[in-house]
Amino acid sequence: MGYDKTDELCINTIRTLAVDATFQANSGHPGAPMGMAPVAHVLFNKFMTFNPKNPDWVNRDRFVLSNGHGCMLQYALLHLFGYGVSINDLKNFRQVDSITPGHPEAHDTPGVEVTTGPLGQGFGNAVGLAIAQQHTAAVFNKPGFDLITNHTYVFFGDGCAMEGVSSEAASMAGHLQLGNLIAIYDDNHISIDGDTACAFTEDVLKRFEAYGWHTLTVEKGDTDYQGIEEAIRQAKAVTDKPSVIKLRTTIGFGSKLEGTGGVHGNPLKADDAKQVKQKFGFNPDEMFVVPQEVYDRYNKHAAEGAAAEEEWKALFAKYGQEHKDLHTDFARRLTGDLPEGWQTKLPVYKPSDAPVASRKLSEAVLEAIHDTVPELLSGSADLTGSNNTRWKNAVDFQPPSTKLGDWSGRYLRYGVREHAMAAAMNGLAAYGTIIPAAGTFLNFVSYAAGAVRLSALSHRRVIYIATHDSIGLGEDGPTHQPIETLAHFRALPNMMVWRPADGNETSAAYYMALTSKGTPSIIALTRQNLPHLENSTIEGASKGGYVLKEDKDAAITLVSTGSEVSICMETVKFLAEKGVKSRVVSMPCTEIFDAQPKEYKISVIRAGIPALSVEVMSTLGWEKYSHEQFGLNRFGASGPYKQVYEKFEFTPAGIAKRALATIEFYKDVKPLRSPVDRAFQQLI
Amino acid sequence: MGYDKTDELCINTIRTLAVDATFQANSGHPGAPMGMAPVAHVLFNKFMTFNPKNPDWVNRDRFVLSNGHGCMLQYALLHLFGYGVSINDLKNFRQVDSITPGHPEAHDTPGVEVTTGPLGQGFGNAVGLAIAQQHTAAVFNKPGFDLITNHTYVFFGDGCAMEGVSSEAASMAGHLQLGNLIAIYDDNHISIDGDTACAFTEDVLKRFEAYGWHTLTVEKGDTDYQGIEEAIRQAKAVTDKPSVIKLRTTIGFGSKLEGTGGVHGNPLKADDAKQVKQKFGFNPDEMFVVPQEVYDRYNKHAAEGAAAEEEWKALFAKYGQEHKDLHTDFARRLTGDLPEGWQTKLPVYKPSDAPVASRKLSEAVLEAIHDTVPELLSGSADLTGSNNTRWKNAVDFQPPSTKLGDWSGRYLRYGVREHAMAAAMNGLAAYGTIIPAAGTFLNFVSYAAGAVRLSALSHRRVIYIATHDSIGLGEDGPTHQPIETLAHFRALPNMMVWRPADGNETSAAYYMALTSKGTPSIIALTRQNLPHLENSTIEGASKGGYVLKEDKDAAITLVSTGSEVSICMETVKFLAEKGVKSRVVSMPCTEIFDAQPKEYKISVIRAGIPALSVEVMSTLGWEKYSHEQFGLNRFGASGPYKQVYEKFEFTPAGIAKRALATIEFYKDVKPLRSPVDRAFQQLI
Ligand SMILES: [Ca+2]
Ligand SMILES: [Ca+2]
Repeated sequence: MGYDKTDELCINTIRTLAVDATFQANSGHPGAPMGMAPVAHVLFNKFMTFNPKNPDWVNRDRFVLSNGHGCMLQYALLHLFGYGVSINDLKNFRQVDSITPGHPEAHDTPGVEVTTGPLGQGFGNAVGLAIAQQHTAAVFNKPGFDLITNHTYVFFGDGCAMEGVSSEAASMAGHLQLGNLIAIYDDNHISIDGDTACAFTEDVLKRFEAYGWHTLTVEKGDTDYQGIEEAIRQAKAVTDKPSVIKLRTTIGFGSKLEGTGGVHGNPLKADDAKQVKQKFGFNPDEMFVVPQEVYDRYNKHAAEGAAAEEEWKALFAKYGQEHKDLHTDFARRLTGDLPEGWQTKLPVYKPSDAPVASRKLSEAVLEAIHDTVPELLSGSADLTGSNNTRWKNAVDFQPPSTKLGDWSGRYLRYGVREHAMAAAMNGLAAYGTIIPAAGTFLNFVSYAAGAVRLSALSHRRVIYIATHDSIGLGEDGPTHQPIETLAHFRALPNMMVWRPADGNETSAAYYMALTSKGTPSIIALTRQNLPHLENSTIEGASKGGYVLKEDKDAAITLVSTGSEVSICMETVKFLAEKGVKSRVVSMPCTEIFDAQPKEYKISVIRAGIPALSVEVMSTLGWEKYSHEQFGLNRFGASGPYKQVYEKFEFTPAGIAKRALATIEFYKDVKPLRSPVDRAFQQLI
Repeated sequence: MGYDKTDELCINTIRTLAVDATFQANSGHPGAPMGMAPVAHVLFNKFMTFNPKNPDWVNRDRFVLSNGHGCMLQYALLHLFGYGVSINDLKNFRQVDSITPGHPEAHDTPGVEVTTGPLGQGFGNAVGLAIAQQHTAAVFNKPGFDLITNHTYVFFGDGCAMEGVSSEAASMAGHLQLGNLIAIYDDNHISIDGDTACAFTEDVLKRFEAYGWHTLTVEKGDTDYQGIEEAIRQAKAVTDKPSVIKLRTTIGFGSKLEGTGGVHGNPLKADDAKQVKQKFGFNPDEMFVVPQEVYDRYNKHAAEGAAAEEEWKALFAKYGQEHKDLHTDFARRLTGDLPEGWQTKLPVYKPSDAPVASRKLSEAVLEAIHDTVPELLSGSADLTGSNNTRWKNAVDFQPPSTKLGDWSGRYLRYGVREHAMAAAMNGLAAYGTIIPAAGTFLNFVSYAAGAVRLSALSHRRVIYIATHDSIGLGEDGPTHQPIETLAHFRALPNMMVWRPADGNETSAAYYMALTSKGTPSIIALTRQNLPHLENSTIEGASKGGYVLKEDKDAAITLVSTGSEVSICMETVKFLAEKGVKSRVVSMPCTEIFDAQPKEYKISVIRAGIPALSVEVMSTLGWEKYSHEQFGLNRFGASGPYKQVYEKFEFTPAGIAKRALATIEFYKDVKPLRSPVDRAFQQLI
């Protein structure tokens, strides 16, 4: 205990690195790193266990910088501790193709746990990481084998505190009594618009108390290292509640503009940067200086972490002798691979099987695989009975004191908190031992858009079970009927949007979602019943798009998804009665179809005849796969779903009318290319 | 005071109407209306002033049902008070083309103020309505002329309370000390997943206290009418804080399943419906029964409201004599028309003017028009200096006690609360005297997607100022660089997405946004400087798309938006050096272009030559306006923006390469139709 000059030097080194990196980039946020350097120094050195040489060690303590704009704080720490972040990487802060981008990105930088910057997200991620720890410990820890004991620490600022996603996540964490979660609130009274007095005057700690958190305050966060240490120690001692420590700090500590908005989002002026260095005893004319004693101090702690991992490995090996099956399961989970042969559990259907809503087909998948895929954690944003996300004998993930479940439970009651649910799922997936899946209505995945985007950007295997996927939900009406939602998420890079047409396609969606380690999925599912289709297969659907009904003499291809595919199959008969031959392509996932070889794609959407897309929502984007588009570029209607479909002409007659117009329109175009035959390749 | 048998009968009539309508529709939510009938009866009859014959009277008290799934409560009230909602409309609950859809829609049903159902939105709308009242009163009330005195009442349930958007809105309302806002929390311990104990165990009132609210509790909300009345009276008496009344109620009061989730989202069973009626003294075999004394009681209060409006009209006429200019302004605002000639204030530019970032061009518009368009309220989600949303001499809308502004201020500091900002703007626009505009980064408009959708669905003139609109924001990197965002909102019906290329186009965007009374707009603006373009005009841009550079002999059309248009203009020269002629179309708003006559559209995107779209984000949807698409179907990069543009080949050379490939690819296709020439018309 006790803090000496080297501690001071370490803290000031972090501060000057942040000054230098933002100055060199002429861009970035020096204020938060300068204000939070003390707490970061204390936390990382006195409390956190980690091995910079193996950032993936599963029992490491997790650190999340929810105020991600302060990322130079994190990059400086990673460098000092010897992660794969060099001094040159710091010099390349915010430069193209560097590993030190403007906000922390987990897949770019070793040691960054989650991708933050969009405010409030990291806070939600931290709640997910803490849930994951609690659950993994409950499943794998055994007497004498405390394999999983890590804590999750999250820094957040006023911006994060104002965001609804962090409010939702904090309420959830309080309910779940996550004693392994410690949040540090950088109370510096400054946000971009200046003093927080202009918009943010609530009592933050009282709010957290209302959520059921343990709360603490450190008044002198700039200088009272011992007080910081004591507060974190007290927080760790409370194990039945998450803790939040309000830390009064001075943004841009040391700058001439300290304590003002001027130091939040802009580099220090040259003269200010110099005076900061002078004040801290650094040479004002040198940049990116790290005194050797700072490296020594940090290397020492890194070595302790490496030793801790070695000890853990020995424990884990011993665990393998006493708990063979659990050891095998744990080791497998860490690879990200699923148990061998798991996919044989996926339900397969034939056309004679009774029609079922695809939300029920999704339930059947969960029911069939949950025993075989123990890392799957399901849940819902308070729509369990509608999303059909809970297998029959599921146990809730709940604090045992609630008597509603236990920590080993695999079903999460997220509450009506879609955004925090998605942010928590990103954290659950980041932990390394869990595949999170959870439900809401497709329309309300939009509430979670900020976090869904980060699932994609940070390459997380997260599954969004999105039921009630169209006007087919009927009576709830336009406020609940998605029109723009699939276009939105199809436009999001690295996101698979699935809209299966029947049972086999639903199994395919799960097959791909569960085996794509670096890509999240949205599985759009119907409220209404769907027939099982002739020729539908898991294999075909797993290509994203495939021919469901072939006809070499067809005059048109109908390209469709989900609940409209069976209507297209009816349309084939309707058109045949008029002497017109047609073929049907089912396209449950355009993103996967895009990745197929060109010859395959052109064999599916043929040249020489026009293609008409049929999907009961925005046509935006369907021009890529069809010559003409039938959709719904307006809001829906409240009523029994069959009547709503009729109102908008999504019937064999309505589709046939447009098919005939399409055939007529394109009959003189030569050559009539397949729409997937393009002049040049897209950058990806 | 005092409550008699008729009151009891009124309350039970509302309950049985909710039972009958949901039973007849075989769909809907009887539980909340049955539980909240008492508070609704007391509130509407003892406190609220309104005229059912003129639902638009500006000084009416506002009522918002944030738990919109309970809409049969609202429809029953509207019917009983004599709004344009007949008993037949109640019988047609949740039927196609009825005015009683599954959730309340403001543009469908007279007396419904805002469109609710997506949880938490109504709460945010109510905060907007309360801000609007406070501001309008400050601007127009004069001694002896208390023109604007109304209150805003909002009902919300556990679902709304869990949503982040309501947390943000509540924090904002507390900061703003909105004493004219009274929220009633239906604390029935039930949400869709069952008992709220499974996910929602926070202390809600303590949380609201932390936000700065006045809090009250009524323990017996099912029966203690006097207690309800007293609580609302106390809430009204506190004028420097918003009030929340926690009302303990029994969901589905009277049903055999009362107090359980079974009565939340499903109609009562036939026998249960009968026993409810028997219990309440109604004939169990009759449906949709309204005793005459109930009509009489409600008509009496309606007549009082009509008289109040007459009195108000007389006061307003007298106001016209003493405050002529204010009277004229007020009367004009209520029509939704802007002051005559306002548009002459819009800045006009010539190519020789210095390059400016379009976020600064947007600021110039606000600076130029704010005096002439006094109903314009600007603001930002804590990005004032980056969004450039504040004109120089703007006054903040703040409680005077903060000394940071006053109630007449026209600049709102929303804090980092994008979702509540958007929901509040929907309420501000709904009030009838204000046009709200506010800023965030384009990427974070996605945080507000739930509310943005309702701007469109409910036909609100709301302006989203969305700066930092692409990889052109540079160093902040992929976490902040929109890729999917424009596609998302272009797919949203009744939403204008603008991406102006220069000064004249920015003026055009504001011209259209401000004059489109029933359509919201997102104006996407650059961080980086843009040149003013030859031939750009407000008139041309107001058509959504127009020819910026014509060439009758062109071999290709380049169709582009925003910051890429000037690069396309450079590309014309680059191609000319290779002997290839080209033309350029600027397409700042595809939605407006879609609405132009077909001949015009084909004159802009010509047949006979191919078109290549150029926009530095997802290509999704551009197939509609071009044969080939150059965009960015991946995440961006952190770095100086010019280097990021080069990395992704958004340069004259990169565009030209793709233009040449496009020309080559389409040279043998005959006829080569314009992509806007379609086989059939879309349903709209
Ligand atoms: Ca701050
Ligand atoms: Ca409830």
